[in-house]
Amino acid sequence: MVVVLKQKVRDEEIQALVEQLESYGVKTSIMEGVDCKVIGLLGDTSLINKEEIENNEIVEKVMRVSEPYKKANRKFHPKDSVYQIGGHTIGGKKLAIIAGPCSVESEEQIIEVARLVKKSGAHFLRGGAFKPRSSPYSFQGLGDEGLDLLLKAKAEVGLGIVSELMSIRHLERFERDVDIIQVGARNMQNFDLLKELGKIRKPILLKRGLSNTLEEWLMAAEYIMAGGNEQVILCERGIRTFETFTRNTCDISAVPAIKRLSHLPILVDPSHSAGMRFMVESLSLAAIAAGADGIIVEVHNNPTKALCDGQQSIWPDQFDEIVNKIKAIAPIVGREV
Amino acid sequence: MVVVLKQKVRDEEIQALVEQLESYGVKTSIMEGVDCKVIGLLGDTSLINKEEIENNEIVEKVMRVSEPYKKANRKFHPKDSVYQIGGHTIGGKKLAIIAGPCSVESEEQIIEVARLVKKSGAHFLRGGAFKPRSSPYSFQGLGDEGLDLLLKAKAEVGLGIVSELMSIRHLERFERDVDIIQVGARNMQNFDLLKELGKIRKPILLKRGLSNTLEEWLMAAEYIMAGGNEQVILCERGIRTFETFTRNTCDISAVPAIKRLSHLPILVDPSHSAGMRFMVESLSLAAIAAGADGIIVEVHNNPTKALCDGQQSIWPDQFDEIVNKIKAIAPIVGREV
Amino acid sequence: MVVVLKQKVRDEEIQALVEQLESYGVKTSIMEGVDCKVIGLLGDTSLINKEEIENNEIVEKVMRVSEPYKKANRKFHPKDSVYQIGGHTIGGKKLAIIAGPCSVESEEQIIEVARLVKKSGAHFLRGGAFKPRSSPYSFQGLGDEGLDLLLKAKAEVGLGIVSELMSIRHLERFERDVDIIQVGARNMQNFDLLKELGKIRKPILLKRGLSNTLEEWLMAAEYIMAGGNEQVILCERGIRTFETFTRNTCDISAVPAIKRLSHLPILVDPSHSAGMRFMVESLSLAAIAAGADGIIVEVHNNPTKALCDGQQSIWPDQFDEIVNKIKAIAPIVGREV
Amino acid sequence: MVVVLKQKVRDEEIQALVEQLESYGVKTSIMEGVDCKVIGLLGDTSLINKEEIENNEIVEKVMRVSEPYKKANRKFHPKDSVYQIGGHTIGGKKLAIIAGPCSVESEEQIIEVARLVKKSGAHFLRGGAFKPRSSPYSFQGLGDEGLDLLLKAKAEVGLGIVSELMSIRHLERFERDVDIIQVGARNMQNFDLLKELGKIRKPILLKRGLSNTLEEWLMAAEYIMAGGNEQVILCERGIRTFETFTRNTCDISAVPAIKRLSHLPILVDPSHSAGMRFMVESLSLAAIAAGADGIIVEVHNNPTKALCDGQQSIWPDQFDEIVNKIKAIAPIVGREV
Repeated sequence: MVVVLKQKVRDEEIQALVEQLESYGVKTSIMEGVDCKVIGLLGDTSLINKEEIENNEIVEKVMRVSEPYKKANRKFHPKDSVYQIGGHTIGGKKLAIIAGPCSVESEEQIIEVARLVKKSGAHFLRGGAFKPRSSPYSFQGLGDEGLDLLLKAKAEVGLGIVSELMSIRHLERFERDVDIIQVGARNMQNFDLLKELGKIRKPILLKRGLSNTLEEWLMAAEYIMAGGNEQVILCERGIRTFETFTRNTCDISAVPAIKRLSHLPILVDPSHSAGMRFMVESLSLAAIAAGADGIIVEVHNNPTKALCDGQQSIWPDQFDEIVNKIKAIAPIVGREV
Repeated sequence: MVVVLKQKVRDEEIQALVEQLESYGVKTSIMEGVDCKVIGLLGDTSLINKEEIENNEIVEKVMRVSEPYKKANRKFHPKDSVYQIGGHTIGGKKLAIIAGPCSVESEEQIIEVARLVKKSGAHFLRGGAFKPRSSPYSFQGLGDEGLDLLLKAKAEVGLGIVSELMSIRHLERFERDVDIIQVGARNMQNFDLLKELGKIRKPILLKRGLSNTLEEWLMAAEYIMAGGNEQVILCERGIRTFETFTRNTCDISAVPAIKRLSHLPILVDPSHSAGMRFMVESLSLAAIAAGADGIIVEVHNNPTKALCDGQQSIWPDQFDEIVNKIKAIAPIVGREV
Repeated sequence: MVVVLKQKVRDEEIQALVEQLESYGVKTSIMEGVDCKVIGLLGDTSLINKEEIENNEIVEKVMRVSEPYKKANRKFHPKDSVYQIGGHTIGGKKLAIIAGPCSVESEEQIIEVARLVKKSGAHFLRGGAFKPRSSPYSFQGLGDEGLDLLLKAKAEVGLGIVSELMSIRHLERFERDVDIIQVGARNMQNFDLLKELGKIRKPILLKRGLSNTLEEWLMAAEYIMAGGNEQVILCERGIRTFETFTRNTCDISAVPAIKRLSHLPILVDPSHSAGMRFMVESLSLAAIAAGADGIIVEVHNNPTKALCDGQQSIWPDQFDEIVNKIKAIAPIVGREV
Repeated sequence: MVVVLKQKVRDEEIQALVEQLESYGVKTSIMEGVDCKVIGLLGDTSLINKEEIENNEIVEKVMRVSEPYKKANRKFHPKDSVYQIGGHTIGGKKLAIIAGPCSVESEEQIIEVARLVKKSGAHFLRGGAFKPRSSPYSFQGLGDEGLDLLLKAKAEVGLGIVSELMSIRHLERFERDVDIIQVGARNMQNFDLLKELGKIRKPILLKRGLSNTLEEWLMAAEYIMAGGNEQVILCERGIRTFETFTRNTCDISAVPAIKRLSHLPILVDPSHSAGMRFMVESLSLAAIAAGADGIIVEVHNNPTKALCDGQQSIWPDQFDEIVNKIKAIAPIVGREV
């Protein structure tokens, strides 16, 4: 951490600041520039709040040299994290494919979709029981009944299930019944929820917030990991930009960036990234080519009748073709399905 | 709502779509263009999900003619909403001034700040008990003890209190003890929380999300109002853009925009908008000049010692000067303090 | 085009507006809604200025049903545009690979890079002679001498050359000597330059502006095409978003989107998209997997000594590996190198 | 400037880097951290290219301590710049008001608007002769004839004229006939144009680019100033964000920010910021309250008939009211009209 001082600062003021800084257990080193002085902080600065230091009257600005996250940081954990979940792995050489409808609608629907996506090669079944909708007047999901149906599909078809948790009220049930608990983009900085998820021992699929930086995303993962739950899976799902043609803008560079900054696995959600069915194949293949650890994609047995997000859900035969192409691309980038 | 059809669509397909649309209780009217057909929907379309229609194979796109929110919409409630809260009003001709520290730190601090801001003219005391922090390693607020101290300050000084609710676990206490419940930017689309707030009868200060559009913001208000709690106060607090010099970008045009679209009061938070003390006065005065119904501003008795957001908190004498200038500008824009 | 009228508008006002609209050679059709009227415009509306209509006192808003661009629009030119340039094609089944240094630095450098990239499989040599730099104090390129050196490299190695035109003052020389004239992101809406490029008959590589929408980009292409020069090649080079870890955010979904909206070829520039060497391979492969018609990538014989953009330039052996992987991915997505 | 080195770097490599850095005429100072080393650069670093240093294999990142602009920097020119232009001042205590139509349409129109805005208190007349339009099919301005008409209005009414230069081809004429030469948002980084403007001696009104940071904007000013033309006036005109309700997002905090960073005057353009007539008053007053040195606003004698931007042009009586309110607010913020 580097602390840039304002011009014309008195020595006593600097001395007081140095003492404050060293009280955090770091060493300091002062550099005298032509028109300003700079204090370097040596040691573990991850617990120091940048804003607290900036708040000092003699400080012009504070710049971080190292990242504010520790447990999610590749520097301290050079090896890729790999999780074993229900007979499949997420992270590592093997790619993970998660597929299913936006929301669980009926027993018939979820079991049919589960069968179809498993046949094509999916490793996990996704399905929303509690749905975050921007309008209070839209379908809000089947709730607990939706989870019951997911469990039936799991029993019947044999795929682990991934579903979104929207409230701590349902945490107990999710912990018991769901294989991977999803945190949606709109809850990425719901810190109260993140803290609770740190207390359980279930893999968490943490979607990137609509307009959160990579650093904020890793700090959200850090919230969960700091609580003791280190099985975090990141998922890029498109960010908000000025472009309105697509629902969101798929930040494909987040894949190599996260691979460099962190040891956590990263998936891509091509469905929410694009918001349009015709783009899902392109983005799925791009994700794998860029080095993602897998995809989570919306598949519906009849997208034109879907109660939610139908316009971005693909048909089962489209999914089948995507999986085949992923299998072909995987070895080129050192992976396998 | 206008439904644009794809080129070369068969009459039976159009007929089926028309029947689906009319099942929502609206009338339809077909326009035949040169290279495409367009179906106009007449009637109340606020309950129709745009995406569901877009999902139909023969639909190219759907465009809303009217807004998807009703209770928050000025078209259906032309008169400004005005709330009476603890002897003061929010909305209407009178401006509301809310001030206080980022977080409650001690009895001494909160009572001193309360005294000072009341003396300068504040109508409500703000103070965080539960704090949303981007790092799990930062100070997270005093929690319930912080609320206790706010109540002491209220009893001692006589200002109604505004504090942020982060979890439904604390809802009961907030409903009992807090005068205006704040929903932070990061929870603006925490729909589970919004629904619970719709069930109580307390004014809600709904901050705009980091990168949420005006429409999404009003839809979040609609969530609360649809539940029966119609006392929503909006608060612009800066949005996320490419500019990094400021913490956020104060979207000052949100003020006249919301005034046109909705009857709800709108405040501006100059502290989070800027993130820097030296800008708070400029943004406060700009907010009032632009037509805001008031400001909510961070004031600390000693910002350089603040445990949170000190760099954007102002000194009591700076607050005093801002209030004086607001008093001078108010009549020019048809308001009073 | 759909014109939404304000509430409570008099019939004579509507009649006057209808006459104005029909004077543009379109037919109109009025739909009467519950609380507003809507006028549909039938016919070619691409020459009608949306804002002019919105300007009418009785108009609430105007929504386009069809795109404002014609020559660049796939609807009117369903077949992909393919250009033959110096023995190679851009567009169509064959992928195009353009490589070379950010800026031409010396005869030795440009000839060595040309030799190396040709050997690895590049079809064109890129190199900047006139450089757009954000600081007036940075190296601004060799200018005309840079073009001389590119011609030498072309004569020696046999690759067509691509270089950026910054000013109409150099147009004559570029028209004579350069095989593909590049318009940089910062000049994408330099309409004066675009008009001049419409008058010549050379392929134009039109980079997307820092924060321009797909529609604005296609309208910039339309400027060139409307002048009679229809050989426009689009190039996604990353857009500006809130994320600062990467230099820009590669909008990979622009690839399938442009393919749907337009018949023009689209390349991806992974170097400017990322701004960091370690990401170039990931983004190059993602571009091809997503369906791009090729890449334009910065390669330097010694990136650590580059006078410009060295941090994002790759080494020749990295380029070689990328080309090999592109060759392997191409057939999976129906392409060849 | 602070250079952060990668982990595990050899001493000889550091020595070589230090020598390279010192060759730029700065001194260096090495700080040894726990897991990395940092080199501080002392002296004038404004001529050092950050990217060039980042390009070195042993460098992790480079952080600027001081700004890359010098002539535009308040640190080196603490006093506000004030220009005398045709009997009026821009900068300093007096506010400047520039008004007129988006484009010059006829002699009658421009003279009538000039008379009306002068009567209300405008100091300069704006009017577009050459218009940057996003569609090649839209009205492109009257060109040279438009300038002729502006000169007639100037002769007749006695207001200095402000007009946008789009091409170096017209530079000579603008230098001779226009009082303040405007550079539009789309040309803010047209570096070739900026360099030419550095060679003349006319005040330049430099609009902020659609998505350019404050630093890039000041660097564009630096381009002009480095050439010797130091009379640059900055103009905030709204930036591009995710919000689409407004044409652009008025970054009101740019006003106090620029005042802190630079000595150059800053105006606000409320017309382009909002894109809607009903917002112009709010944004104009907000600009003055925030500390702007004036406004440049689109006024038309009959906005509903305007050939360009009519929907954001205000009526002369609206302008009159805005000027009156500005006169009332000015003394509250220490200014006068």
